[in-house]
Amino acid sequence: MNRFGKNFRLHIFGESHGPSVGITIDGVLPGIPLSAQDFTDDINRRRGGMAAGTTSRKEDDLPVFLSGIFNGYTTGAPLTIVFENNDIRSKDYDQIRQVPRPGHADFVAGKKFTGYQDYRGGGHFSGRLTLCLVAAGVVARKLMHTYQAGKNITCEAVLLEAGGMRDTEAGIQKALDMGDSVGGLVECRVQGLPVGLGEPFFDSLESVISHAVFSIPAIRGIEFGTGFAAAGMTGSAHNDVYLDETGRTATNHSGGISGGISNGNELVFRVAVKPTSSTPREQLTFNPATGEREAIQVKGRHDLCIALRVPVVLESVTNCVLADMLIEYQAYHL
Amino acid sequence: MNRFGKNFRLHIFGESHGPSVGITIDGVLPGIPLSAQDFTDDINRRRGGMAAGTTSRKEDDLPVFLSGIFNGYTTGAPLTIVFENNDIRSKDYDQIRQVPRPGHADFVAGKKFTGYQDYRGGGHFSGRLTLCLVAAGVVARKLMHTYQAGKNITCEAVLLEAGGMRDTEAGIQKALDMGDSVGGLVECRVQGLPVGLGEPFFDSLESVISHAVFSIPAIRGIEFGTGFAAAGMTGSAHNDVYLDETGRTATNHSGGISGGISNGNELVFRVAVKPTSSTPREQLTFNPATGEREAIQVKGRHDLCIALRVPVVLESVTNCVLADMLIEYQAYHL
Amino acid sequence: MNRFGKNFRLHIFGESHGPSVGITIDGVLPGIPLSAQDFTDDINRRRGGMAAGTTSRKEDDLPVFLSGIFNGYTTGAPLTIVFENNDIRSKDYDQIRQVPRPGHADFVAGKKFTGYQDYRGGGHFSGRLTLCLVAAGVVARKLMHTYQAGKNITCEAVLLEAGGMRDTEAGIQKALDMGDSVGGLVECRVQGLPVGLGEPFFDSLESVISHAVFSIPAIRGIEFGTGFAAAGMTGSAHNDVYLDETGRTATNHSGGISGGISNGNELVFRVAVKPTSSTPREQLTFNPATGEREAIQVKGRHDLCIALRVPVVLESVTNCVLADMLIEYQAYHL
Amino acid sequence: MNRFGKNFRLHIFGESHGPSVGITIDGVLPGIPLSAQDFTDDINRRRGGMAAGTTSRKEDDLPVFLSGIFNGYTTGAPLTIVFENNDIRSKDYDQIRQVPRPGHADFVAGKKFTGYQDYRGGGHFSGRLTLCLVAAGVVARKLMHTYQAGKNITCEAVLLEAGGMRDTEAGIQKALDMGDSVGGLVECRVQGLPVGLGEPFFDSLESVISHAVFSIPAIRGIEFGTGFAAAGMTGSAHNDVYLDETGRTATNHSGGISGGISNGNELVFRVAVKPTSSTPREQLTFNPATGEREAIQVKGRHDLCIALRVPVVLESVTNCVLADMLIEYQAYHL
Repeated sequence: MNRFGKNFRLHIFGESHGPSVGITIDGVLPGIPLSAQDFTDDINRRRGGMAAGTTSRKEDDLPVFLSGIFNGYTTGAPLTIVFENNDIRSKDYDQIRQVPRPGHADFVAGKKFTGYQDYRGGGHFSGRLTLCLVAAGVVARKLMHTYQAGKNITCEAVLLEAGGMRDTEAGIQKALDMGDSVGGLVECRVQGLPVGLGEPFFDSLESVISHAVFSIPAIRGIEFGTGFAAAGMTGSAHNDVYLDETGRTATNHSGGISGGISNGNELVFRVAVKPTSSTPREQLTFNPATGEREAIQVKGRHDLCIALRVPVVLESVTNCVLADMLIEYQAYHL
Repeated sequence: MNRFGKNFRLHIFGESHGPSVGITIDGVLPGIPLSAQDFTDDINRRRGGMAAGTTSRKEDDLPVFLSGIFNGYTTGAPLTIVFENNDIRSKDYDQIRQVPRPGHADFVAGKKFTGYQDYRGGGHFSGRLTLCLVAAGVVARKLMHTYQAGKNITCEAVLLEAGGMRDTEAGIQKALDMGDSVGGLVECRVQGLPVGLGEPFFDSLESVISHAVFSIPAIRGIEFGTGFAAAGMTGSAHNDVYLDETGRTATNHSGGISGGISNGNELVFRVAVKPTSSTPREQLTFNPATGEREAIQVKGRHDLCIALRVPVVLESVTNCVLADMLIEYQAYHL
Repeated sequence: MNRFGKNFRLHIFGESHGPSVGITIDGVLPGIPLSAQDFTDDINRRRGGMAAGTTSRKEDDLPVFLSGIFNGYTTGAPLTIVFENNDIRSKDYDQIRQVPRPGHADFVAGKKFTGYQDYRGGGHFSGRLTLCLVAAGVVARKLMHTYQAGKNITCEAVLLEAGGMRDTEAGIQKALDMGDSVGGLVECRVQGLPVGLGEPFFDSLESVISHAVFSIPAIRGIEFGTGFAAAGMTGSAHNDVYLDETGRTATNHSGGISGGISNGNELVFRVAVKPTSSTPREQLTFNPATGEREAIQVKGRHDLCIALRVPVVLESVTNCVLADMLIEYQAYHL
Repeated sequence: MNRFGKNFRLHIFGESHGPSVGITIDGVLPGIPLSAQDFTDDINRRRGGMAAGTTSRKEDDLPVFLSGIFNGYTTGAPLTIVFENNDIRSKDYDQIRQVPRPGHADFVAGKKFTGYQDYRGGGHFSGRLTLCLVAAGVVARKLMHTYQAGKNITCEAVLLEAGGMRDTEAGIQKALDMGDSVGGLVECRVQGLPVGLGEPFFDSLESVISHAVFSIPAIRGIEFGTGFAAAGMTGSAHNDVYLDETGRTATNHSGGISGGISNGNELVFRVAVKPTSSTPREQLTFNPATGEREAIQVKGRHDLCIALRVPVVLESVTNCVLADMLIEYQAYHL
């Protein structure tokens, strides 16, 4: 399903080498001022053209508003934003028809869509669609800040490690030196949340955030608060002691969530990002046409460390989740 | 929202110390033979009455069918199963009204539900509702096996670590010796999946599984395949090489998922379980009535290592996800 | 799908001759006082035991709360209400296994559920499940009245015609005299709605109301405002002229809805109710076992004019729709 | 919500005088051949440029595929189709800002979207968005015909009456002569349906069809089979007698639906279409700026009898409903 969200509803579409990628957002409050300039910073953070270790594909990434904006404000009707694909070099991908690239969706796409998938540049599976998530995040943040309960919320994600190193520049340099791609670790922190976001069981805050987060390609794990380390702790060490009637706690092992609900402390979670599948190194794969294994070198322009571009996308999907929940919160708090 | 699933739809209800906990499952195929006996094994695995380190609460946990069964078979109409609560000692929980237990949902429940929550034994937040998830898992597994594409699917979860030790019995003994609760690590493996379960982006297989998994209380993290370790790997080491036209790979760092879609290899994921919040040790908390911090000892009957009971619940929610996706799969594969 | 509603979510279950019928309502505000007495009036209106032309089946129809109520107030957790089935005479229905009753769901149920359906008394298709809708309507009305925007809303449905006669008592007497069942016409009027309920296109107020209304068995048509008569009018006669800035109009041909959205005038719609399928008269049907047509007399206890019992059910589903929309309204009106 | 459908999911967007109107369809089977030519006939039926009594707005109405098509076939990824708006005369609508047009959504849109709505040509409420529904109908019909159970399904809607006259040309001429708009009556018939589409209660076939149908602007009522006339009939006259084991009935008062489920007979329903709100005649309305009532003449180019354009839209939404249900049907019939 190309949809996410109950109240703030995202619907993405598009392919890497089709005419455009885009998103329709339904459930936007009317009266939010919105212009192309609002998207510039986050889109630039996502674009990697200048940084070492990022793809050389150059796109303007200018948002084009097809609907839902009038005289510079959201109208309350569905908001559709598209980004044109201009810098396409589809011939790099002719090979994919023959042999699936290791680590990519080529193989499963062919099976799931019975051979009719657009295979160029990963088609609909391309990381290029994260541009739509970033656009949604911009709208989500603005919407969130229009609510009294959301106006102080800030969400920030940073790259903690790259290539296994805390010094992330060194991690990227290692990748460049090795001529190989590397993974990374990204942490997201949200401040200013009201108590009460999330639901018991199925729509716990962790459930919904992780649902959104795993829609970002290359994410392999998520942990909240102390996370995996909690498995080795005792209860008396792990429990966060309440300090006052606001719910502030002395420690934050729970990462700001109790019983699936935001508890008013800082929301903290980390995600593991796998190394970019498109490593420059030659790799083995299986060629169904010949029935033989063969070595391939993946063409196309790719990031050596996709984790470099994850923070802004992670913030974006998190803001989408929070905006969605704040709309609900508003409805149930008279 | 108390609902999970698009086609195989779960709706849970109930409180720890109310008359019962229960679940309505909609979207069940007619004609599946179903009796109380079918639930015995999984319910016994979830019950902890006999094992060291598990709660002394004794419940019969007999499924009562309110609807959807006729002459021993599912009818295709909504299937409602309830479990009565008999062994209730609510007076243990009078204290909760005054002071929220550290690590529990007491504080957030009070805020979210503005003081009207059933606070006895955690109310609707109680782990007792996982009994309903286990019941759903039994039905899901049976449904899954009625489909050609699902008949060979097996799902198994095991406790890998308790109290930070690979020897889990030693880990539990450590907890008993310390008089404290401990966490654990659980791994789930699924074999026999067809290629093609999951959707690009929002309903990736990881998204939907993690959504379900974080509905289980006490889960703090999830990782697929190599997971967090992938963040420190290179692409050429992490990529799984295809060996033949079935998509079988030489390694399984991806844990059986490519581009959010099952790739036909074993599905593997691990979850971190925090130590039970109700440690026997005395703990500090804040008493809003007095405006002072105070030491409490949590009453009630609790597990020292809730991770002991997680494997069957983890299997159950996984089977629910897979059944749901197989129904969809069936619709799109003519 | 056994579910209705986006925010105020209904999930029904049960069969006519199973242990009970019931409903889980999710999305209920905490703090609404609720007791069995609150349901008495509406349940009595729905029950037909005393009136001429209604079924002689006698049920206590006492609501049993399985979850979501604590100390007399809703908790905010899922609210489950069941009604036990006591006065069951299943042997009346043995015949159905052989020959489908004309006008009933017996035939389609057998096909859809491939022979596994509970056929006794119509099983899950029974009008007895409207008891659950009535219960939901009680909760919806209370919830609606807790909102500022909903506190003045009143919804009233009346039987306009029975057996084709404006004098409905005469219409019922006609049915008794003929020994046949008759249909009826029911009108529903809602006052006090705010402007703005409903959405453009897919979730127009008419769309959502009609969706709910056609879930009531025996409804064959619905019209809003002037309805079918509008097809023969001119635009200048049909358009409602605005009289002031509140949107009050001189006429109400539109029935209180413009562009799919409530316009602040009285909401008016009518539904056609078919004659009860279980007429006392002998009828022809086809016996698949013998391959022959045969005459049957439908046993069981039935209403001669089911339309008598429709008004309270119609009010109930309407109140459920309005409560659902008011929750949404609250979220989008700061 | 701008969404309709569970499996075959529609999401519309756009405004009458914005850059375009469009639709994203998710849940499309891969491998369906699709080209702009496939849309020509239905789009031409919907366009009214040539017929007397229809708008003089001239648009090319060429579908532009933004995603989901590759090499002439659907890919299985979200399918986005847009139609550019070229022949726009927005100045006709400056007046709307001041005074709401009777019968239109202007007033409610202003209230619901707190003054931020795009008011030009009705904005998002415009009938121009039915072009997107027609496009969806084309895809739905093709998808439906790829299934064994759907390949013989045909859906046809015709204008039964215009201006209150069975001779519809005379009805239109009457409108032209009067210089006023008129309403109409449209009937839809579907043949070849399998037994079993629809669900008990909330997603009855009538519920889902009426939900879709009332998303078409100007529809004021719907009736199935004998419809409102059934309210005046007796049960023995109304019940349809089964003739054989296929469920074929001697009469079809039920319009092909029993218990909310398709029974294999012809599906028949009728809708009432109100007269076009934009009558050429001068009308009274209220001017909030002056606080006075005033006479206005609605500018813009409009149909005298919008019912002329309804049949193809009615077929389209019906085909969307059926395609959606057939996907489900396929999943539950092994």
